[in-house]
Amino acid sequence: MKTTFLNHINTPKDLRNLAKEQLPLVAKELREFIIDIVATKEGHLGASLGVVELTIALHYVFDTPNDLLIWDVGHQAYGHKILTERRTNFYTNRQLGGISGFPKRKESVYDPFGTGHSSTSISAALGMAIASKIKGNFNKHHIAVIGDASIASGMAFEGLNHAGVTDVNLLIILNDNAMGIDPSVGALKNYFTNVKAGKKVRKNNIIEALNFNYSGPIDGHNIEAVILELERLKSIKGPKFLHIITTKGKGLDKAEQDQVKYHAPGKFDKNTGELIAKSNEILPPKFQDVFGETIIELAKKNTKIVGITPAMPTGSSLKLMIEEFPDRAFDVGIAEQHAVTLAAGMATQGLIPFCNIYSTFLQRAYDQIIHDVALQNLPVVFCIDRAGIVGEDGATHHGAFDIAYLRCIPNLVIFAPLNELELRNIMYTAQLGITFPLTVRYPRGRGVLIDWKQPFSTIEIGKGTCITEGNEIAILSIGTFGNKIIEIQNSLPKNKFAHYNMRFVKPLDQTLLNQIFQKFKTIVTIEDGTIVGGFGSAILEFASENNYSTNSIKQLGIPDNFIEHGKVDELFQSIHLSNEALLNFLLNL
Amino acid sequence: MKTTFLNHINTPKDLRNLAKEQLPLVAKELREFIIDIVATKEGHLGASLGVVELTIALHYVFDTPNDLLIWDVGHQAYGHKILTERRTNFYTNRQLGGISGFPKRKESVYDPFGTGHSSTSISAALGMAIASKIKGNFNKHHIAVIGDASIASGMAFEGLNHAGVTDVNLLIILNDNAMGIDPSVGALKNYFTNVKAGKKVRKNNIIEALNFNYSGPIDGHNIEAVILELERLKSIKGPKFLHIITTKGKGLDKAEQDQVKYHAPGKFDKNTGELIAKSNEILPPKFQDVFGETIIELAKKNTKIVGITPAMPTGSSLKLMIEEFPDRAFDVGIAEQHAVTLAAGMATQGLIPFCNIYSTFLQRAYDQIIHDVALQNLPVVFCIDRAGIVGEDGATHHGAFDIAYLRCIPNLVIFAPLNELELRNIMYTAQLGITFPLTVRYPRGRGVLIDWKQPFSTIEIGKGTCITEGNEIAILSIGTFGNKIIEIQNSLPKNKFAHYNMRFVKPLDQTLLNQIFQKFKTIVTIEDGTIVGGFGSAILEFASENNYSTNSIKQLGIPDNFIEHGKVDELFQSIHLSNEALLNFLLNL
Repeated sequence: MKTTFLNHINTPKDLRNLAKEQLPLVAKELREFIIDIVATKEGHLGASLGVVELTIALHYVFDTPNDLLIWDVGHQAYGHKILTERRTNFYTNRQLGGISGFPKRKESVYDPFGTGHSSTSISAALGMAIASKIKGNFNKHHIAVIGDASIASGMAFEGLNHAGVTDVNLLIILNDNAMGIDPSVGALKNYFTNVKAGKKVRKNNIIEALNFNYSGPIDGHNIEAVILELERLKSIKGPKFLHIITTKGKGLDKAEQDQVKYHAPGKFDKNTGELIAKSNEILPPKFQDVFGETIIELAKKNTKIVGITPAMPTGSSLKLMIEEFPDRAFDVGIAEQHAVTLAAGMATQGLIPFCNIYSTFLQRAYDQIIHDVALQNLPVVFCIDRAGIVGEDGATHHGAFDIAYLRCIPNLVIFAPLNELELRNIMYTAQLGITFPLTVRYPRGRGVLIDWKQPFSTIEIGKGTCITEGNEIAILSIGTFGNKIIEIQNSLPKNKFAHYNMRFVKPLDQTLLNQIFQKFKTIVTIEDGTIVGGFGSAILEFASENNYSTNSIKQLGIPDNFIEHGKVDELFQSIHLSNEALLNFLLNL
Repeated sequence: MKTTFLNHINTPKDLRNLAKEQLPLVAKELREFIIDIVATKEGHLGASLGVVELTIALHYVFDTPNDLLIWDVGHQAYGHKILTERRTNFYTNRQLGGISGFPKRKESVYDPFGTGHSSTSISAALGMAIASKIKGNFNKHHIAVIGDASIASGMAFEGLNHAGVTDVNLLIILNDNAMGIDPSVGALKNYFTNVKAGKKVRKNNIIEALNFNYSGPIDGHNIEAVILELERLKSIKGPKFLHIITTKGKGLDKAEQDQVKYHAPGKFDKNTGELIAKSNEILPPKFQDVFGETIIELAKKNTKIVGITPAMPTGSSLKLMIEEFPDRAFDVGIAEQHAVTLAAGMATQGLIPFCNIYSTFLQRAYDQIIHDVALQNLPVVFCIDRAGIVGEDGATHHGAFDIAYLRCIPNLVIFAPLNELELRNIMYTAQLGITFPLTVRYPRGRGVLIDWKQPFSTIEIGKGTCITEGNEIAILSIGTFGNKIIEIQNSLPKNKFAHYNMRFVKPLDQTLLNQIFQKFKTIVTIEDGTIVGGFGSAILEFASENNYSTNSIKQLGIPDNFIEHGKVDELFQSIHLSNEALLNFLLNL
């Protein structure tokens, strides 16, 4: 792309050499640059377009990287990356070996803190600010930019509550666009909306009540006004809070108009914004759609069913139920802890809550699963979306740990469907009346069946199935990874390998396992989760407990390091879980 | 105890038959009853004394158990238990087989939700209130009583944020006594303090801004005033918030004066409140004191050390450092998520944060450990207190899961000291400069060494030690459970059993393990944590990975069910981990 200014800005220092009057043109160029690349390379679009002016203003006013700047959630940081030494390789964004779609400490000194999950920036920036104070550095600035959806999460409140009683140099900028991935929800969001509308509620200033120096709201697209205010705040000591108003997707009409779709739109025409139509090929459905359509089918007949999502109505497809049954399906915002205990409360009153949370975000509700659901043995159904390797979002978002962290919890049943049918049928089974909490883990993306809307049938809890008989080696798979074995089955020597779809990580199918351990000396476990503590370890524990001390058990799964970003298939290849690698492994047994 | 009214109150219905004028006398009797029993049976005192009038008023005004009443944290619920069918067995409080020290669904229909960890009550009550609405029951009341320390936790904010946009029948009562176990902290606490003082900040009404019908503050010990206000609120629809002011320990002078000590004072004289002195016997120190004294010793020399506790300064003994280095040690309130990411932020700036969190509460910061600390490989030192079985606090508080849930996290080092010296020395080692996050787990209570303040020495990361040589069976212990083996060593046949103190759950000492697996066919692992996914499973994984397919491995640890309350030794006995049971197990190998 030909530019007047942008091509000469490698670091924020170059930016600071420009005159203020030139910055609106830099903003125009930066916005075009982002659109240009994301249009063909894909990625997060709307959030970064919304903060183009803020990004420039921050780097213009503050002495980055000496001053520390943290972008909450991180998908708003594309402009920041481009202005901080990563313009020329921005085209590698989210690709294997390329730069990360989120700020990342290893990648740049301009990224003082990695952000991928939301609402961490206030705590991190406060930690840095306190550190500066302890080290006697009173001139350093510490800035967190956080959206209105993210600040409503409990963790952000905890950070505000602590920061308000300190005297450190902390600036929190609320990037208020009334959106997360989906529209923001909750009482705090309504409060901010009222503040923007200049309503009298402004006298109830929540932020001032928490002892912050509050200013705003100001127009976040007026670069001059933003700079002026940042310069003023720079000279004020103690915790400060600037409320700016932005438009998600700013500068691309279609992205402004459909902010949900253009959060991460895939490929589009950079001039018109039109999405580039995908092929007309009939593909198996996404697991998300299977969940979304199935819960409606079930909810129509069973009035006890309710749905809960913490801020992922579109991503999880619970949106379908929210539209169909607005009184029985709830987007509670970025509030995983609350979502789980809310579900527990509902379950005590005889409802059947389907609580849909991404695997990586369920980590934030771990205590609530143990203390509020499992300990009370309440029949909450957890639909754990994005389990396993998720692809381009990378290390912050892979759902690698859920089997390991859930397996130790008493009372909990852990199921992983092989395909769309098993997902449908376990949902059907759950709402018939379970007496325990049930977790159902499935991956991001498409399944394997075109004709998936079959009549419902029940799944017996704790029962696995044999997919292929064999005589020498038993392969025990859990979840959709079983399809990999099915795919390579024909390349394996006939009758040598048996394949069992175990389905339940907990409780294990002891009857079936006893048969397997008695018949096969060599047993291979395979899962889309960490080897450490995972399904394979459950099999090892079974063998130990049942004195099978002569079987040889091999575990395949995600190794004990954080997995980076890239296409799912590339990542599988990198950790020796591609079909080819699996085949090689099995053939060498 | 002889009483005029209390002995005739078995259910709240009996209470409701009394005249309002008689209630102050009921309060007097209830307070005496609590003091009477807790003085000799031990337990939580101050919190329940503070809500005697509120407890009576709630059961008098509302139709419990049809109306649903949730006591946050739960240790304020003694009066509630006594008025709801549990007066005659209240003397069994917290004993093995007796009633729980916390509300518990299994125990009573008057306990609609189990509470032990704080800040869950709003979400649970909201879930119930939404369920009532869905079921068309518009007259049911749903009440959460929550303290000012607990409402400052992020999870409570998430609940408020959701409740504020609903129209359900929810009453939140803020029991404001400016205390958790220790004094409350944070900006919200200051805000409430200002409200109480009638300061002009009251115009910034945070609660009203979140769309609640706010009333108060009123005197929570004026039973008539409380009843009057509850009756008024009962007729108002939608989310309501009542702010009442109470005194923790009310009615026992000494408990009012030293609210921290009398939170759970142990035995005391019921008339004077004087604590009953423990024996003068010289005992090994508590691990908590070893932590508290050692961090000061180290912090004196190493200015990079900072300390963090989420609301447990007394329990963890970080209080010692807060007193000595007030600028370098932080009580951040009930905010585990924030505590961990704050530590991560500090670590990025070269500080060495010692973040001390109880095992059971660390569950609430699980995502932050993964996403903010381990993924960035930041050198935060987690001192995980109350690991393992904790005793009378029971199922909500045992630290049973930490080994299992931490073990799957890449980069993390997991250490468990055998004794006070190893705790001191790992703390010393950590502050010399580590390049990874380190977790150190140790139990509640006393160690085994009188003479524990030895000169520091370093502990090599990932190295275990041999305590006793042997020829036939290897016992691999982790942490203080190793002392059990040491204690029974003399009762074991000579030279048969070798005992290894493995010290590190992660990374495992592979060199030592290879020696062990080559020498011993039978290997026993023992730990104060869940068998599922625990240290023993790590050993199983090692064996599988290294093709040791002929060794027989036996796992000893906490079984796969929630462990109830009782004395630690009684609980060990109940799960076959008493010294006697261990000895029997080993002798039968």
